[in-house]
Amino acid sequence: MTNQIHTAIKGIFSKEIEHVARSEMLEPEAIAQGLVRGTIVIPKNNGRSLKNACAIGKGTRTKVNANIGTSQNAARLEDELAKLDACTALGADTVMDLSTGSHLQKTRRAILKRSPVPVGTVPIYEIVINGIKKHGSAKKVSTDEMFAVVEEHAKDGVDFFTIHAGVTRAVIASLTKSGRILDIVSRGGAFLAEWMIENGRENPFYEQYDRLLDIAHRFDVTLSLGDGLRPGSVADATDGPQLAELITLGELQQRALKHGVQSMIEGPGHVPLHQIEANVALEKAVCHEAPFYVLGPLVTDIAPGYDHITAAIGGALAARAGADYLCYVTPSEHLRHPTIEDVREGVVASKIAAHAADIAKGIKGALERDRAMSRARSERDWKKQFKLALDPEKPKLMREQSLPDVDDVCTMCGEYCSIKTAHACLEKARRG
Amino acid sequence: MTNQIHTAIKGIFSKEIEHVARSEMLEPEAIAQGLVRGTIVIPKNNGRSLKNACAIGKGTRTKVNANIGTSQNAARLEDELAKLDACTALGADTVMDLSTGSHLQKTRRAILKRSPVPVGTVPIYEIVINGIKKHGSAKKVSTDEMFAVVEEHAKDGVDFFTIHAGVTRAVIASLTKSGRILDIVSRGGAFLAEWMIENGRENPFYEQYDRLLDIAHRFDVTLSLGDGLRPGSVADATDGPQLAELITLGELQQRALKHGVQSMIEGPGHVPLHQIEANVALEKAVCHEAPFYVLGPLVTDIAPGYDHITAAIGGALAARAGADYLCYVTPSEHLRHPTIEDVREGVVASKIAAHAADIAKGIKGALERDRAMSRARSERDWKKQFKLALDPEKPKLMREQSLPDVDDVCTMCGEYCSIKTAHACLEKARRG
Repeated sequence: MTNQIHTAIKGIFSKEIEHVARSEMLEPEAIAQGLVRGTIVIPKNNGRSLKNACAIGKGTRTKVNANIGTSQNAARLEDELAKLDACTALGADTVMDLSTGSHLQKTRRAILKRSPVPVGTVPIYEIVINGIKKHGSAKKVSTDEMFAVVEEHAKDGVDFFTIHAGVTRAVIASLTKSGRILDIVSRGGAFLAEWMIENGRENPFYEQYDRLLDIAHRFDVTLSLGDGLRPGSVADATDGPQLAELITLGELQQRALKHGVQSMIEGPGHVPLHQIEANVALEKAVCHEAPFYVLGPLVTDIAPGYDHITAAIGGALAARAGADYLCYVTPSEHLRHPTIEDVREGVVASKIAAHAADIAKGIKGALERDRAMSRARSERDWKKQFKLALDPEKPKLMREQSLPDVDDVCTMCGEYCSIKTAHACLEKARRG
Repeated sequence: MTNQIHTAIKGIFSKEIEHVARSEMLEPEAIAQGLVRGTIVIPKNNGRSLKNACAIGKGTRTKVNANIGTSQNAARLEDELAKLDACTALGADTVMDLSTGSHLQKTRRAILKRSPVPVGTVPIYEIVINGIKKHGSAKKVSTDEMFAVVEEHAKDGVDFFTIHAGVTRAVIASLTKSGRILDIVSRGGAFLAEWMIENGRENPFYEQYDRLLDIAHRFDVTLSLGDGLRPGSVADATDGPQLAELITLGELQQRALKHGVQSMIEGPGHVPLHQIEANVALEKAVCHEAPFYVLGPLVTDIAPGYDHITAAIGGALAARAGADYLCYVTPSEHLRHPTIEDVREGVVASKIAAHAADIAKGIKGALERDRAMSRARSERDWKKQFKLALDPEKPKLMREQSLPDVDDVCTMCGEYCSIKTAHACLEKARRG
């Protein structure tokens, strides 16, 4: 079975390396080198066929993940498959199935079957749900039962999974002494903390990390080392518990790389604007330039209903500073299970952040699309503008709802269109 | 009649200085000093009573402006008054009446009468519309007619107006030699360029700047020195014509200050993420730390329908770097005359950017609101969360549309709520 790191070490370009190199307009050598050094991952389970493999990490285009999945209150598989279609159509590079409703395996398999992009999961959710079902409580789950679920996800073809192996007893001790407003806002982190505290034991994924690496290695599943202690308030950001966990993740990342397992590091969360660059620099230093996968970050806590915007601000700044992979946030964050409309808004907001950062990073081809859009604006060619837009449908609809009397302007300025006025007079000025 | 600069120079604290000092939690001395140095403005016409005067500039909270006003295709006054109410309810610090529909003076007076916040205008729009009406073409307007409209705006009580006095013949010459994709995207800039090119004359507001200063001084109207050459594409940003105009504006700002006229500098526009800090630093240096009023900036051109988000990203970064005043952008930008819903989305997006920057700038009281929100989240107190939200209505509605079975969680996580899980187990851990 293919293992991307081992193949790259041998100097062989896997078909995934060739594919992502083409799509990034980079040399396959650069991708292979990134895999070997651990600065790039290509999340792809070696047991599944994947249409759109993608590279995440240094030098590549900033990627966007969209979370989908059922919840207890909204458990229809077809709704989540419709969301999958909507977010891949809008350019999400990966999706994560975060289902916590019923029929978890059926849902996961359906998403894996349908998704043209890499699929990630968080096995701890199923571990907890099965534990409650079987033992009446998640505390009573055995470590064997935990690893069995992880292995099942790998066997099903999952391309990457989040494992909160950094939530150690030492990290929790640091948390209990901290003055955080919101202790733990990661579901996986909270469950593991509960299990560890109730049973007086170490985190199984930390204690038996090699067992985890063996499973990941067998199926070439990329580890997304979860940040169970990510801040859930801008007032809690960049504190002791967060950094203690990050240091642990840096150690685990090196062990994964040595084991031929690709890994990336998950990051905050809620971070004020002035701490974002420092958070990225810290991750890059402590985690040996491993790909940084940030959730948001949200730059303020006071905008529920608009957290796709607070996350786009933080995400753009993080990506410009070197974050490689943005997890989208929908307007529903902190409020409810998202609707398909929320999912669309979330994907576009994250794509904006990623693209804005790619222009700043000088990623190949990024600015070209803006140039083309600006030329279409200069020509007042509306069809071309819609075609070049991140979301072609919404602007088209907005214009159709408010058509001007003259074709080549819009209802904001009408005949007073600045572009049109300037065109005419500057032609004259240029002629002399 | 009151003149804020002269009053401050005499060491007297006007009631506006006292008012804004209280609302900023700053000493009145700091505000007065800012007025004298030209680093702070308090836009208020001395002929009108104004409920919520505000300070814009160094050391104060980042302010947000919302543009309203009729267009040729959407000319109902009552719609624009409803937008005025909506944006002030959501916390817009100022509004600008950019009407280009019919009955311009009636509209302006109605907005001035109803607005609890400072009102700005762009007199050149009325100059052009009257010119077309009277002479059949805007090119034929006389300079006396131009200044008459400006004076009328001042007499009507306008608190600040945009004057594109920096669009000089030299600046236009620089433009004709540049390789811009979009030459001029400012309506005022385009009209003036047309008038100057067609008549072979200098910009009247530049040539007769003292005449403008006399009017502004008489009514204590704050000048918003417009950027007629602002880039309209990220590919055009930070180029020769833009900087040539900025240098001119820096000279005009000093002349205004000497004349006892408050002024601020308008800024771009479309700017890629990596040039935003430099743009702010340039304005602060070249324009003697005058308040910087940015339109966006939009960090990419490819997201029509979502430009409130591209502008929030740029605005947050600009404000963190020192921009003082953000002009909102609605989702309708580049597409149509905005609806009231677009106006709401635009105001909230800009308020998010401003607040995120204020946290980073260490503005008094900014972080406190986030702390309170996070505490409400920790307590799962939904009413308190809505009350503390930038927009209390939308999140309330979103939650109501998707109510959980258990009161104190939401339908995303249901019984698997991380905050609830962590609360219980960490209580235990803390007890030992």
